[in-house]
Formats: sequence, structure tokens, C-alpha cells
Amino acid sequence: MDVIPLIGYLAAACSVTSFVPQAYKIIRTRDTTALSPPMYALTTTGFLLWTVYGIGQGQWPLILTNAICFVLAAFILVMTLLPATKKDAVADALTPQD
Amino acid sequence: MDVIPLIGYLAAACSVTSFVPQAYKIIRTRDTTALSPPMYALTTTGFLLWTVYGIGQGQWPLILTNAICFVLAAFILVMTLLPATKKDAVADALTPQD
Repeated sequence: MDVIPLIGYLAAACSVTSFVPQAYKIIRTRDTTALSPPMYALTTTGFLLWTVYGIGQGQWPLILTNAICFVLAAFILVMTLLPATKKDAVADALTPQD
Repeated sequence: MDVIPLIGYLAAACSVTSFVPQAYKIIRTRDTTALSPPMYALTTTGFLLWTVYGIGQGQWPLILTNAICFVLAAFILVMTLLPATKKDAVADALTPQD
């Protein structure tokens, strides 16, 4: 059995899910002080370009994984840029009501 | 001229450089409060697996780009986990002296 494709799937799973805990932490704490907006600008642009690259290559796994990362990274970018009141409003809207 | 490979290079450049401003901000401010350690645990593991995948495929561009991302993401992960005094010591050691 070839283990290399399996390592690729595991790598993709880590990459795709990695932004979820950061997005969740922002929704919970509304704190983005220590986050770097230039990092999220670069990473969001990167995932957008990878998605376009995947479309150009007709590679669905590339399109799907990078499109998910793009949405999550773009959300974090927007939250780092919003003023506190708007950040709270977005976080409130995404927090399940008791 | 085919624009798709160029988009791939630009995407790789964004991905590889994206962690630099975050690492720099941590060295400058020593603040990692808002950062999510699980995010950096996942992303560091992901880049390690992508590097192994690249080695398995014998693809040097994959190895090189993911190894650089691995080092930067691992540094950020370590900084989110270190106690404040050790974080300061690492940041001091990495800050150019006047």
C-alpha cells in the first residue's frame, strides 16, 4: 500500500481545518489585536489565486480545498479590519442564541 | 502565453510569505493573546505533512515552499505556547540591537 497519497490527504485535511479554531476564537473573544492584517491579506490573496489556478487546471480537489480556506481566511481578514462595534455585531450574529 | 502557471507562482509567493508579517508582529509586540494555538498546531502539522508528501513525490518546489512555511508556522506555534518571560527572551534574541 502506498502511504504517500494518504499523507497528502492528511496534509490537505490539516490545511483546510486550520483556520477553523482561529475563526471560532475570534467569534468567541472578539479579540484580533495580536493578529496581523498583512498576513491575512496575503493568505486570502494566495487562496484566491490557488482557487483560480485550480479552475485553470480543472482540478476539483484544488478548487474545493482552496475555496474553503479562502472563505475562512477572508472572514478572519475582515474581522481584523472591522472597528470593534461592527466586529461585535458580526460575532453576535454568528453566536448561537441561548 | 499561458497565464495559469504564473497564477500558480503568484499563489505560492503569497502562501510562503504570508506568515512573515505575523512572525514579525509577534517579535515586535510579544503579544499572542488573540492567536489560536490549535490553528498553529494544525497548520504546522499540515506543512510538515506537505513537505513529507513533496519528498515522497520528489517535487522540489513542493518541498521548498512547504518547508519554509513549516519553519515560520512552527515558530509562531512555539511563541503562542511559551510563557511571557521566555517569549520575551526569544523576541529579544531576534531583535536587532541598536
